[in-house]
Amino acid sequence: MDKWIAVDWGTTNFRAFLMQESNCIERCARGPGLLQIEPGNFEAELFHLLQSWFAEAPYPIVMAGMVGSQQGWHEVPYVEAPCTFSSLTKQAYAFTTRWSSPVWIIPGVRCHSPYQQPDVMRGEEVQLAGLSAINGPGKYQVILPGTHSKHVLMDNQSISHFSTYMTGELFALLSQHSILGRALPPQEDNLAVFHSAIEVAQRKTPLSHQLFSARTYRLNKEIAEQHIHSYLSGLLIGAELVNCETTQSVWCVGSSKLTENYSRAAKYLGINLHTIDGDECFIRGISHLYQHIAGEQ
Amino acid sequence: MDKWIAVDWGTTNFRAFLMQESNCIERCARGPGLLQIEPGNFEAELFHLLQSWFAEAPYPIVMAGMVGSQQGWHEVPYVEAPCTFSSLTKQAYAFTTRWSSPVWIIPGVRCHSPYQQPDVMRGEEVQLAGLSAINGPGKYQVILPGTHSKHVLMDNQSISHFSTYMTGELFALLSQHSILGRALPPQEDNLAVFHSAIEVAQRKTPLSHQLFSARTYRLNKEIAEQHIHSYLSGLLIGAELVNCETTQSVWCVGSSKLTENYSRAAKYLGINLHTIDGDECFIRGISHLYQHIAGEQ
Repeated sequence: MDKWIAVDWGTTNFRAFLMQESNCIERCARGPGLLQIEPGNFEAELFHLLQSWFAEAPYPIVMAGMVGSQQGWHEVPYVEAPCTFSSLTKQAYAFTTRWSSPVWIIPGVRCHSPYQQPDVMRGEEVQLAGLSAINGPGKYQVILPGTHSKHVLMDNQSISHFSTYMTGELFALLSQHSILGRALPPQEDNLAVFHSAIEVAQRKTPLSHQLFSARTYRLNKEIAEQHIHSYLSGLLIGAELVNCETTQSVWCVGSSKLTENYSRAAKYLGINLHTIDGDECFIRGISHLYQHIAGEQ
Repeated sequence: MDKWIAVDWGTTNFRAFLMQESNCIERCARGPGLLQIEPGNFEAELFHLLQSWFAEAPYPIVMAGMVGSQQGWHEVPYVEAPCTFSSLTKQAYAFTTRWSSPVWIIPGVRCHSPYQQPDVMRGEEVQLAGLSAINGPGKYQVILPGTHSKHVLMDNQSISHFSTYMTGELFALLSQHSILGRALPPQEDNLAVFHSAIEVAQRKTPLSHQLFSARTYRLNKEIAEQHIHSYLSGLLIGAELVNCETTQSVWCVGSSKLTENYSRAAKYLGINLHTIDGDECFIRGISHLYQHIAGEQ
C-alpha cells in the first residue's frame, strides 16, 4: 500500500489527508463544505483543492461524510445496521476521476434507534471503524458529540444501533436566534452554572419547559448574563446524557473542544467516560477501511 | 364608569381597545411592539397611535404585557403566585401622561413551576382574570398557547402556579433556521402526519432525539416535504400536552389560529379541552381589573 488520500467532506467542512500506508504525511485542513459547492462542481473543486498532490500521481481517494448524500457528489445508499465495517467497504461507491484517481465513497449507516425511530449517520461510521480497530471486540457505548450528536452501541466490531440528538444545532439556534440568547455580553465558562443545569436536566421534565429557565434565572439574577451559554450547554448535554449507562465505560469521540463539556457532565453524573481524539479515530478508521478495499481489488 | 382605554402591549404587537364600561366600541389593531420602540419613546408613541381618542378626552388607560417589563415603559415588579386578581390591581403601577390620562400598568406574575423552576408571565394574567370572571370559582387547568405557551392551575379565582413551554418559539426556530426546515416547499396541514408526531411525542424519549425524526422520515419519504411543519407542530405540542390532566376539563385561551392544533392534539390524546377566544378573555379580564382599580380610587 503506497500513498493515497483520505477525505472527510461534510456539509460545512472539508478536510483531506495525504496518507503513506496508515500514516498521515500531509494535511489540507480547509476547503468548502457541501453547501458552498454548486451541484456538478465536486470533481473540479477536489482537483483544485489537492492539485499539488495530484501533480505527483493520481492517488487513490477514499471519501466519507455528506459527500455521499443526496446533496453530495454521488448519492450512496445507506447500509442498514447492525452492520460490520467490511459491509461498508463492500457497498462503497467506486468511480474514477478525469485524472484517473480511483475513488471510493464510504456509505452512511441507517437503523431504527432504540426509541423506535429511523436514524442515520454519514461520516461518524469511519470514526467508529477507527475506535473499533483500537478497542478490538466487545460491547460498549460511544458518543460522538456535534451538531447532531450520535449515541452508538458497538458490539463485536459492528455498529448495532444508534440515536441522534440535535444538541449542537439546538445550542446554536437557541444562543443565536432565540430570546434566551438575546443581548448577551461575551460569554465565560462557569462550571457551577453548568452543573446546576445538569441538575435541572436530570429532573426529566419537558425540555421546552426546562429551556425557559435560562430566561427566568437570568431575570432573577440567579445566573449571570455571561454564564447563559454554560447553562444552555448544561441543559442540552444533560438531556442527552440523562439516560446514559453508568455501570460500564462509555467512549466519547471528538476534538477536545467538543468533548470537554461532555467529560464535565459525565463526571458530574457518575458516567465513566473515556475521550479519544476524533481525528485519530478518523485516520485509523479510514486506513482500516482502505485496507479492506485494497484487499478486495 | 365611562370611556377608558385598554392596551395590550407586547414584544412584537400592540393592540388597543376604546371601551365604554365593559364594551369595546373601537379598536386599534396595529402598532409597534416593544422591540421597535426606542427607550424613552413610549409616551409619544402611544399618543401618536391613539390621538383621535385622546382628542376627545384624556381617557384613563389600563395596560398589560411586556410594556411593564425591564425593556418596557415602566418596570412593574412581578406579583408572586399564588395570587388573586385584586392583588394585581393593588400592585399596578400608576402614573399620569403629559396629556393628563391616568395610566395603570398591570404587573406580571411569577411563581415556582410544578417542576421547581422559576417562571414568569406578563399579559396572560389579564386573560386569566377574564376566564376566571366567566368561569367563577373552581379548580381547573388553563393552557394559553403562543411563543411561550403557559400551563396554569387556577383555584378559587386565583392563579396557583404555572409553567412555560417554549413551543411557539421552538417551532419558529426549527422551521426557519434548522436543517429540519431547510429547502421545504409551501406547507400543507396534514392531520395524519400531525397525529403520527403526537404518537412519537407520547413515547417521552428525549425531545432533541425526537426532533431528528423530522429529518429521517423526510429522507425516507415516509413524510412528504409539504407536511414537515405539521409533523414538527405535532412533536412540540405533543411534548407539551403529554403530561396533561385527562380526567378533568382543560381550558385553552387564544385565537382560533393558535388553539386549532391544540384542540386536534387534545382530541387525539383524550384530553377534554374547551377553547375560548383570547380577545374575549382579554377584554373581559381587563374590564374586571379596571373595575377593581376604579373601585379603589
